[in-house]
Amino acid sequence: MDQEQQDQYSGVGIDGVITPTDRTGNSPGSVIMDPDAYFKAMVPSDTAPGVWRWDDIEHVLSEMAKRPKRYPAYRRFAALVNQQWDGAPGASPLIFVGVQRIYAGETLPGHRHNSVAIYYWISGRGRALVDGKEIPFKAGDFFTCPAWHDHSFVNDGDEEMTMIAIHDLPLLAQARALFWEEPVGSENTQHIVREGAGSWSAQEEHEAMEADPDIVRASAT
Amino acid sequence: MDQEQQDQYSGVGIDGVITPTDRTGNSPGSVIMDPDAYFKAMVPSDTAPGVWRWDDIEHVLSEMAKRPKRYPAYRRFAALVNQQWDGAPGASPLIFVGVQRIYAGETLPGHRHNSVAIYYWISGRGRALVDGKEIPFKAGDFFTCPAWHDHSFVNDGDEEMTMIAIHDLPLLAQARALFWEEPVGSENTQHIVREGAGSWSAQEEHEAMEADPDIVRASAT
Amino acid sequence: MDQEQQDQYSGVGIDGVITPTDRTGNSPGSVIMDPDAYFKAMVPSDTAPGVWRWDDIEHVLSEMAKRPKRYPAYRRFAALVNQQWDGAPGASPLIFVGVQRIYAGETLPGHRHNSVAIYYWISGRGRALVDGKEIPFKAGDFFTCPAWHDHSFVNDGDEEMTMIAIHDLPLLAQARALFWEEPVGSENTQHIVREGAGSWSAQEEHEAMEADPDIVRASAT
Amino acid sequence: MDQEQQDQYSGVGIDGVITPTDRTGNSPGSVIMDPDAYFKAMVPSDTAPGVWRWDDIEHVLSEMAKRPKRYPAYRRFAALVNQQWDGAPGASPLIFVGVQRIYAGETLPGHRHNSVAIYYWISGRGRALVDGKEIPFKAGDFFTCPAWHDHSFVNDGDEEMTMIAIHDLPLLAQARALFWEEPVGSENTQHIVREGAGSWSAQEEHEAMEADPDIVRASAT
Repeated sequence: MDQEQQDQYSGVGIDGVITPTDRTGNSPGSVIMDPDAYFKAMVPSDTAPGVWRWDDIEHVLSEMAKRPKRYPAYRRFAALVNQQWDGAPGASPLIFVGVQRIYAGETLPGHRHNSVAIYYWISGRGRALVDGKEIPFKAGDFFTCPAWHDHSFVNDGDEEMTMIAIHDLPLLAQARALFWEEPVGSENTQHIVREGAGSWSAQEEHEAMEADPDIVRASAT
Repeated sequence: MDQEQQDQYSGVGIDGVITPTDRTGNSPGSVIMDPDAYFKAMVPSDTAPGVWRWDDIEHVLSEMAKRPKRYPAYRRFAALVNQQWDGAPGASPLIFVGVQRIYAGETLPGHRHNSVAIYYWISGRGRALVDGKEIPFKAGDFFTCPAWHDHSFVNDGDEEMTMIAIHDLPLLAQARALFWEEPVGSENTQHIVREGAGSWSAQEEHEAMEADPDIVRASAT
Repeated sequence: MDQEQQDQYSGVGIDGVITPTDRTGNSPGSVIMDPDAYFKAMVPSDTAPGVWRWDDIEHVLSEMAKRPKRYPAYRRFAALVNQQWDGAPGASPLIFVGVQRIYAGETLPGHRHNSVAIYYWISGRGRALVDGKEIPFKAGDFFTCPAWHDHSFVNDGDEEMTMIAIHDLPLLAQARALFWEEPVGSENTQHIVREGAGSWSAQEEHEAMEADPDIVRASAT
Repeated sequence: MDQEQQDQYSGVGIDGVITPTDRTGNSPGSVIMDPDAYFKAMVPSDTAPGVWRWDDIEHVLSEMAKRPKRYPAYRRFAALVNQQWDGAPGASPLIFVGVQRIYAGETLPGHRHNSVAIYYWISGRGRALVDGKEIPFKAGDFFTCPAWHDHSFVNDGDEEMTMIAIHDLPLLAQARALFWEEPVGSENTQHIVREGAGSWSAQEEHEAMEADPDIVRASAT
């Protein structure tokens, strides 16, 4: 190895991580690790149990109800996250759990995603429409929507409808594989990572969300 | 919500992340996110391509050869990592790639893991032993070892044997599901996360690895 | 290619699937596919939505209650499966959902697994014990148990406790990575695939389960 | 449970699998399993090692070279499959491995997919173009292309270029999450499952592939 080549290893440091000088300028994060460095970096932290109390979830949902512009039906959900996981967040390392509320007379507009969603109705009754076909539901029922099928929900009952949504969304996000289309329409198809998606809806920007003064505060009552 | 309950939301802050006071003391990372906060936390960074040059890999392997005590056959591999991924490291988000070298006459001792490994022989020839059965290999061949089956490798040729190892190891690490048993023997079974594994081998401690003065330096020639 | 080599391709058939004669006798399923054959084999079937009605789930659970020997607390659950998925079964391709019932005064004995479980209490109240620490629950609460941590559940209330259990169990089964230890005790650790596990409990055999005349019949009332 | 409800369990049969009559006609595969039936269905078969010999792979690639219309660069690859896995096929349960050949002067046209691909050059030299940026390669180098980034390969050397491609494609197929765009152009974006993709290229139909008399035969020499 001549001097020029040696100089390429300028980033060589502790812990057996070798950082070759990038010869093309196109691969800034590529390193070579020895087995001990890799082992240490690969072993994730162990975590404590996750606990989310219904009183807290209910409180968040009722706060959202006070800000209907900020939290319309499709964004009126409480995501349960254990922040001890690294990588894409979820209730477990690969699984998302959210609790969503739709009020009597409301419709959650049609959308689709490449994660297969599982729904459980805690309370209320209503209908799902999958590719235009109706499936009625009431409290206690479970439903899964196949990947990339359009689906919407209608609360046609007299009381609020609360449901749990379960996805393998953190796995797909972690793998950089997540697609979302909301509202329905191919012009709204977003590759969540590559296309710099700003929000669940292709028609919204995260910046606009952040600027909204009506951000939910759990203790604001 | 009375005052006592409100006080439990002491961690409520920006970005719609609600941190209820932990009522049991057993769930420090459990939070509730609103959809905007969750979306922002969930979308991973996009990354640049990963590039690892053979000259660099070869250099690392030859440096390891100079430190046989520190890098015996089972730990003489170069792990290719793109540090732009979050979560458990790999060449891609869910896949580990390493380049391993075994010298003529050497044996990589028997071990097993719950990831299914794929091997490709770049050069040399030798034998794998899977549960005691022999499978001969030479450059160009591919081989997969079923999960949790004992396997070892023997270089019975005249030249060095270099192979690529491919696992879904980052996925299993991320899911906290990875088991490793090295060397073979149920007393050496390690749940990599829960049991605080110190190294690939149950008979080694990471601390001892770190204290070893022979740590590889790619520019040390 | 000489005659001897040609003869090795005896299994060559339709659809571009090439089946070399196995030279070692140790790799019966290894084939080479051309891109068209692979594409056709790789694309999974699309599926219809999954729907599971509460009345059906409740009926199955109440039938189980009539056969307490066959369905003690740890095996008193209804697994929701969409049989249109190929690979390991679940409510979605990678996620298991089960509804479990524990009666007043009962304990679900301590066990652990390398899937991270998420629990939701539909009704009742009780306690989880994770590595000996108590976490009380009541209807509406969510709880996740970290991978490979011992956990048990106690119904110390006056009514039945019904809970939803959510795992990435089909993913781990599909990857051949699933470990289970039930009841707690390293002598009961089972690699579900490799070790030919007979049942959830290392102390039971599937054959014995099948021989039991008390098998649940949903229409047996 | 009244008579009408009982009749709904018409599909109840052996092994604790309960098949409620589908009330909506929209969920044909939804069943409820008891824990013993689920356990039995969930535990996958253990498998033998996979072995793929270089002579066989080379033979398949050279046969493809004789049928350039059927096997242009983008479809001139040998997929290594262990048919003992259930679910989407691969060299391991979640990982695809293919060996691809590009001749001197050829270009593999631009395309993208939501799996992160890893490439290793066995022989030859050339360039990758990722979103228009050039990255040169030669034998021994490794390269990963981020998900959903356009990439093409050019063999600008004097000899054939052979490379290994590694994806988490079986995982994404199994999860029904796989997207493919080939050739580049949003009109060619295919959700592999939902949209009934006929081939890797949106401009081809599988039927046309099957009708082609030039299908590769490994023993045709």
